[in-house]
Parts: sequence; C-alpha cells; structure tokens
Amino acid sequence: MMADVAQVETLRHFRIPGLVADNKWSVGFDPVTEADRAAELAMRKVLAEMRPDDAILGEEFGYSEGTSGLTWVLDPIDGTRGYISGSPTWGVLISVRDETGPFFGMICQPYIGERFIGGLGGAWMDGPHGRLDLTTRAARPLSEATLLTTFPAIGTPVEKSAFDNVKKQVQLTRYGMDCYGYALLAAGQVDLVIEAGLQAYDVQAPIAVVQAAGGVVTDWRGNPAHEGGRMLAAANAEIHAAALEILQQAGE
Amino acid sequence: MMADVAQVETLRHFRIPGLVADNKWSVGFDPVTEADRAAELAMRKVLAEMRPDDAILGEEFGYSEGTSGLTWVLDPIDGTRGYISGSPTWGVLISVRDETGPFFGMICQPYIGERFIGGLGGAWMDGPHGRLDLTTRAARPLSEATLLTTFPAIGTPVEKSAFDNVKKQVQLTRYGMDCYGYALLAAGQVDLVIEAGLQAYDVQAPIAVVQAAGGVVTDWRGNPAHEGGRMLAAANAEIHAAALEILQQAGE
Repeated sequence: MMADVAQVETLRHFRIPGLVADNKWSVGFDPVTEADRAAELAMRKVLAEMRPDDAILGEEFGYSEGTSGLTWVLDPIDGTRGYISGSPTWGVLISVRDETGPFFGMICQPYIGERFIGGLGGAWMDGPHGRLDLTTRAARPLSEATLLTTFPAIGTPVEKSAFDNVKKQVQLTRYGMDCYGYALLAAGQVDLVIEAGLQAYDVQAPIAVVQAAGGVVTDWRGNPAHEGGRMLAAANAEIHAAALEILQQAGE
Repeated sequence: MMADVAQVETLRHFRIPGLVADNKWSVGFDPVTEADRAAELAMRKVLAEMRPDDAILGEEFGYSEGTSGLTWVLDPIDGTRGYISGSPTWGVLISVRDETGPFFGMICQPYIGERFIGGLGGAWMDGPHGRLDLTTRAARPLSEATLLTTFPAIGTPVEKSAFDNVKKQVQLTRYGMDCYGYALLAAGQVDLVIEAGLQAYDVQAPIAVVQAAGGVVTDWRGNPAHEGGRMLAAANAEIHAAALEILQQAGE
C-alpha cells in the first residue's frame, strides 16, 4: 500500500517530455523534488494511519519519533539522476528496522512494475512476468563474477582505487544501476554490488532484500552497513570474503 | 510480428536463475547465444513468409541476398552483457534499409514490454503505460546536457580521450545503457548518446528511430554512421554540432 501510493506519485513526473530538466535548471521548480516529496508524504500518510506508533526516517522530511521501537526508512526516489535521465533503474525504497538493523525491505521500480521484497522469512519479486522467489547466486571465483555499481568515479580517490582493484579481478563490471543493482543481486543475476558515499535511507531496504535472498552485506571493513557510507553487497559468504579482502586495504 | 516472435525467444532465457553464466563458462553451452540464434531464426521465418524478396543482415546468421533492393537488419539481442546481468537495457533491434540507409526501425525491450518505433513519417513508443509520441529534446548548451553511453572505457584510447572531452563539458554522464540509450534519446529524456566500435546491425534501428523523432545521427566526422564504428546521436542539430566539434579532434 505504501508502494502503491509512492508509485502513483513518482510516475506522475517520470519521463514527462521537456518538463523535468527544462524547469529544473531555469526557473527553480524541480519536478523531481516534487515527486520525491509527494511520494514520501503519501507513504507517511499510510504509516500515520496503519503504524502511528512507529518512527519514520525519510530522505525528504527527516526523522519523526515513535514509541514502538520500530523505524520505517523511506527513500521515495533512490537514483534521482537515473530518474531525470528516463532510466528504469531508480526505485522507491521502503524498509523497517529495529535496534539491530533492517529486517524487512522493498525495492520498487514503478515504471517496470517490479517489487523486490525480502525479510520476515521470505524473499520474492512481483513483476510484469509474474512472481519469483529471490535467491542469490552460488559461489564462484571473482574471475567469473559480475560486479555492479552506479558511477565509475565511485566515492573518494581512495575509494575509487579500492573499487578498481576489485574491478580488475572480476569478469564483467556494469555501471548505471542505482538501487536496481541490489535487486539484480537478490535475484541471482550478479555477484557483487559495491558503492560508497551512501546514506542510511539508501541502504536499508537493499540490505534487507539482499540478506533475505541469501546474500551478505557489510561495509568495507566487514561491519554492519546500516548507517550508509561504504557498502559491499555479495551473493554469498565466499565471494563476500574475496571482495572484502581487497576493499579492506582502502584507507579512510 | 517479428518483434513478437523475438520477444518470446529472448525472454525464454532472460533471468533464468543460475542457468546463463553457470553453463556458459563451464560446459560450453551458452544460453545467450541460444536465445540470440532462436530469436533471429524466428524473425527470419516471418520475413521468409512476408517479405521473401528482401535481403537480410543478421548478427547471428550474416547476410542473405534479396532482389527487392531492401535489406532487413536484425540484432536479436543488442547488449548481451546487459542481458546476462539481468539489466533491462538490452534490446531487439529490427530495421529496414535501402541504398540510402535505414528508413524504419524498432528498438524493443521485451522484459519491460516497450517498443520504440520510428520511420515512414512516424515516431512513437508502446509501453507498460501506454502509447506516446517520440520527440527529441529542444536545444540546450552542453553544460546542461545529459550524455549516455554503455562503458566508460569506450573504444580505443584515442576514442576514450575524445569522449572524455565531451563528458567534461556536459552536466551528467550515465553509463550502462546499451541500445536503450537511443530509445531514451528519441523519447526526449537525454541529449546525447556517444559510442564507438559498433557494428552495422547495432546502429541501423537506433538511427532510424532517433532520426524519426527529430534527432541527428552521424559518425564522429559528421558522415553517415550506417555501417557502424563511431556514433554520435544527438537530440537536435545544435547540440550535435557542439559535440561534433569536440569529437572531430579524435584521430584514427
């Protein structure tokens, strides 16, 4: 239901010819921000009715306190640069966490009509070709692996250098994925997603979905990545260890 | 109808968990090639019935002579690396050309269910949210433009250097697009697509669609790009000229 309302609001402005960038750069009206804010407000309204005691952390409207111990973490449009380019790789991120981290999450791609869902014992996707269980890939060497990220100029120079050291070891590196990369990892299509410079609201739904599908997600030191920063999401423990060994060499 | 049969064959192997890469690398059976070949055969069968006098140039089965002066150019899976990563940016490319070049083309993304069609006086798309006319963007300076390509390590070192000189001038560069970048250009979402190292079957459908939507497509010297190689596809004549001035400095 939160995904339904977010879908309506985000698609209202997606691929409107001429509108997005023309207005954004010239008259200070930014339809992406409009869509972002409208989608988060719509999701907050659903939560106010159904989960009034839970806290909310949203990209657009920040933190709202709760009393239940649970926090909903919302990113109405993850991948705004993908969004303004018309690319179907942005997503609506919805998750819920307790003090140990996110335990349920959803990555929605409203244009394609896909929802990748994981947590509370299940992991599945609904899409234009039906429902599928989500299971990450079995272990394989780095030399046979596919690695995804969003921008080649990932993070700081130190971070880019560490990333490039993993990239040199893998078979195929693909860019431009936004949050869709984590969905493909959960769906067993690729082996690694590595990013840096992330926010808490960017990572929590992907963490929940990938973990529920069998993957392993940490920062570049092997610690929890719930608060954002550097993320290493892997299909299984073996390839996680192989990539972590390389990324750990990155300084601060 | 050709798009329908190609859709069935390409989706048969898309995102099959574990199948693609596992078999591809270990036992010599390559389901991507299977899908590629099956889709091209299915399209050739349609043409044999409906257009028996036309020639065919296909990625998988090469050139078949005709007597009509028309040639169908087919790429059953453009963007195989996107395909094996589960990314929805690969496409089925179908076009028809005479001695002057392609005059009708289609970029199909079977998973999303989109077809971007241009030529013979029209340019439109059919997709999950209905039918839309395709019109490229109005002119804007490079400093406000979005540029798409597939891999950051585009072409030869000389080609990469020329590409990087354009990249430095634009506002946003996005990667990983495969043929979907040309569809987004035709749909008015971005300003430029620049690639190198292309084949004739990669470029002809994109050229027809982008030109029908109002764009300008040449090689990096301003000459026709029908035979592949280096491609500069632009939303309008002004931004084409601005990018061409930079790319022309590239040597062979």
